[in-house]
Amino acid sequence: MFQVFESGSKISREDYKKRLPELRAELLKTQFALQEQGIPLLIIIAGVEGAGKGEVINRLNSWMDTRYIETNVFRKVTDEEASRPFHWRFWRKMPKAGEIGVFFGSWYTKSIKNLVFGKESTAQFDAHMNQVKSMEQMLVAGGMLIVKFWLHVPEKKQKKRFKKLEKDKRTEWRVTDYDWRYHEHYQQFIKVSQRAIRLTNTADAPWNIIDASQKRYRDIAFMEILLQQMKAALNKNGIKNGTPAPVIPDVHDIAKPKNILDDIDLSPKLFKDEYKEIYDELALEIEFLAWQCYQKNISSVIVFEGWDAAGKGGVIRRLVPALDAKLYRVIQTAAPSKIEKSHHYLWRFWQDLPEDGKITIYDRSWYGRVLVERVEGFAKEEEWNRAFHEINEFEYQLIEHGTIVNKFWLHISSEEQLRRFEERQKVGYKKHKITDDDWRNRDKREAYKTAVHDMVAKTSTEYSPWHIIPANNKNYARITVLEIIRNSMIEALEEGNPDKST
Amino acid sequence: MFQVFESGSKISREDYKKRLPELRAELLKTQFALQEQGIPLLIIIAGVEGAGKGEVINRLNSWMDTRYIETNVFRKVTDEEASRPFHWRFWRKMPKAGEIGVFFGSWYTKSIKNLVFGKESTAQFDAHMNQVKSMEQMLVAGGMLIVKFWLHVPEKKQKKRFKKLEKDKRTEWRVTDYDWRYHEHYQQFIKVSQRAIRLTNTADAPWNIIDASQKRYRDIAFMEILLQQMKAALNKNGIKNGTPAPVIPDVHDIAKPKNILDDIDLSPKLFKDEYKEIYDELALEIEFLAWQCYQKNISSVIVFEGWDAAGKGGVIRRLVPALDAKLYRVIQTAAPSKIEKSHHYLWRFWQDLPEDGKITIYDRSWYGRVLVERVEGFAKEEEWNRAFHEINEFEYQLIEHGTIVNKFWLHISSEEQLRRFEERQKVGYKKHKITDDDWRNRDKREAYKTAVHDMVAKTSTEYSPWHIIPANNKNYARITVLEIIRNSMIEALEEGNPDKST
Repeated sequence: MFQVFESGSKISREDYKKRLPELRAELLKTQFALQEQGIPLLIIIAGVEGAGKGEVINRLNSWMDTRYIETNVFRKVTDEEASRPFHWRFWRKMPKAGEIGVFFGSWYTKSIKNLVFGKESTAQFDAHMNQVKSMEQMLVAGGMLIVKFWLHVPEKKQKKRFKKLEKDKRTEWRVTDYDWRYHEHYQQFIKVSQRAIRLTNTADAPWNIIDASQKRYRDIAFMEILLQQMKAALNKNGIKNGTPAPVIPDVHDIAKPKNILDDIDLSPKLFKDEYKEIYDELALEIEFLAWQCYQKNISSVIVFEGWDAAGKGGVIRRLVPALDAKLYRVIQTAAPSKIEKSHHYLWRFWQDLPEDGKITIYDRSWYGRVLVERVEGFAKEEEWNRAFHEINEFEYQLIEHGTIVNKFWLHISSEEQLRRFEERQKVGYKKHKITDDDWRNRDKREAYKTAVHDMVAKTSTEYSPWHIIPANNKNYARITVLEIIRNSMIEALEEGNPDKST
Repeated sequence: MFQVFESGSKISREDYKKRLPELRAELLKTQFALQEQGIPLLIIIAGVEGAGKGEVINRLNSWMDTRYIETNVFRKVTDEEASRPFHWRFWRKMPKAGEIGVFFGSWYTKSIKNLVFGKESTAQFDAHMNQVKSMEQMLVAGGMLIVKFWLHVPEKKQKKRFKKLEKDKRTEWRVTDYDWRYHEHYQQFIKVSQRAIRLTNTADAPWNIIDASQKRYRDIAFMEILLQQMKAALNKNGIKNGTPAPVIPDVHDIAKPKNILDDIDLSPKLFKDEYKEIYDELALEIEFLAWQCYQKNISSVIVFEGWDAAGKGGVIRRLVPALDAKLYRVIQTAAPSKIEKSHHYLWRFWQDLPEDGKITIYDRSWYGRVLVERVEGFAKEEEWNRAFHEINEFEYQLIEHGTIVNKFWLHISSEEQLRRFEERQKVGYKKHKITDDDWRNRDKREAYKTAVHDMVAKTSTEYSPWHIIPANNKNYARITVLEIIRNSMIEALEEGNPDKST
């Protein structure tokens, strides 16, 4: 989920200057409105060290009315705090109606550190995260607005920042031994943080992950998201008091992260001869591995999503010859039937889950909820918004059972898609593959791009990341997919499933 | 929580006959309405063996339209089921829109058995229950109505039923070795079941515990609760579609369980001499134990609730002389101040939690949410209804920290209360203790009784049961409370806290 926020989202100096006065005015106005309505606001700021959490807090205090903001830094537990239940220190500092509490270091910090440094088991960690989830839901039900931020910088950037701070006499004190120790465990922190976010990323109190590589973008995105969520809370509060429709405002364009798809290099190619050679070998390997997985009762779920004409069918047709027909099924996910509509949207996918040792390939999947159903308005915002967390919990049940879960988004450029559409219309035996729907979807490419970005951001979990496959070149896409499938089988056979063994 | 349902709730043959035709007609009518609105209904039936779960299901199928009811008995896991994620077997049988699915043996059964027989750790059990809670909330958010029943019979009654079935040649096959093994572990099952219910007793999918000792009451209460919850779901659905106020119908009087307070024997007395002797000894013991707890860092929370003039103050005044003034604080909980009102209702109680080794005595407490705030309408139904689960989670955090939690309801009869009120008005130095509010509350005794019953039922947990103290005789009440406090301290010192050590 973090890779998505490493694209280097940027705001130019001019855009920054142009937006700033208006943004600050709106922030203040909205802060006063919240105050008037007596809504308490809790801002939780977390993220990797070196992302500039402190700087953001300073900015917040200078842009809003500080008289009603209390910033709380939770570092070492005091004696008084240690001798009471863990959450006591936070309850002491809860913002009251109309005020803003900033928690810097929160109920997440301790458990994340404990799991990284082995002082807490995964089961204990999950239990604490469930407690946190429950408590946040309770506070929100009680009328509080909780806005949670996660500031992210990539590993290299972190190192660079620490080094830069150390070089300067005026700032070297800011980099501590702890920071470097943290840096050594960067990957582990990221993995554990993903778990924390997955478990607590509810529709009531969602996480907002921000690419903090560029300070201008970081600060503006932070404030724009805060503004948007304050406005949404005001609108919801209006409804509670009788006003009809809840208009959830969109976040300002300037704050939108660089779309993950814009970052994908679509140039890689594989020429026919090379492809053929690699493919033959891969197919043999996968055939062998699939049988081994069968013997060891390891099942696989393989999900294909992607643009129309991106070649999902083609990849699947290259994958299945490597598999014994007894071992796999391909599920084509079309619009739901009448009976499927009369069930929960996840129901139909549960039916086709593979039994131990077998493979189910989903040609489109439950992700329709946050793609087509979102873009076409078949699902309401609250419905598709809830779905991210629901899907993560669903897939976790697969992982817990020991199933390998692979998710692919096949990505092609708009031009390549057009080329393929036109080709399909020209070539007789391909004509059936292109419909009016395809053209209509093509017009909505921007909306789909946003949906894909959010999907990858919110459902790339520590146990099942999304694989975005550059698919302008079909050979390259096919080989890349098969390699990932092969590697995941090798890994599962070697390591077993860590979650299942607990 | 189960003791509350051992009062022997009964329905007379005449009342049964009188209500039956109307109830059946209403059940059918409401079933059809649910069907028309396309609401799927999931009925989960759990409870102790021998409570007659099968009989209730037969009754359900004969009273409603069976064409739209599918009863699923989940016993042994089949090979097909074992080779997929645990919840697969349930997803296969999910009721679709407009239909009713009955789950007999559900996603609760396996974990409860596993914890009782040591095949699962407490942490794993909690994780599974959290998964279940999450899934139920997801299904309800998706439009499903989930009605959960727990049929309860006391240990002795269970034995009697098994013996009776065994005696009769026609029914002896129904009692298996498993049943007797279950019976041997009755107390353990009850403890684990309480934990399961506590963790999953959400406002979205609350548990309905039924006293199943009398078959007539069991069957009628089951159907009346089902009817009430179907009607509530229809009303809620109406709102979603635009209709204004959500009228939540009350369950029919006939189904209301015998109030726990009606079962309390108020006759026990202690005469002055005897009282004096026991008290002196107890006070010495408690003084010593409190210091030991202080040295071992064990804190205590003691909650006093009870009728006006039941003698809360008097008990507290007998308790505190046994305690060193450095060790305890007494918190008087009056109507919330302005600042308290601007926080979550639990906030003010968090502030006064004792530090390790110390004692906080709450003279009235967070239970005001489900007592005075419920009865007086200061909290909306959805608010006080949610509070049961919130309070259980709050108190669990105390237990987890190692705090002893004792909760007392001081019970006096209506006549005794009247006598004390009148005495207070007559005696000069007692006059300030009686206010108009007290008289007003007295008029609402029935509403309070219901609230007390529900409170005891829903917040008596496996780690902190309610103690209902017969308090018509002040000496008896004081000694009983002190004895319970003494015993809980001895227990905590001997055993340590099992939850904290995990």
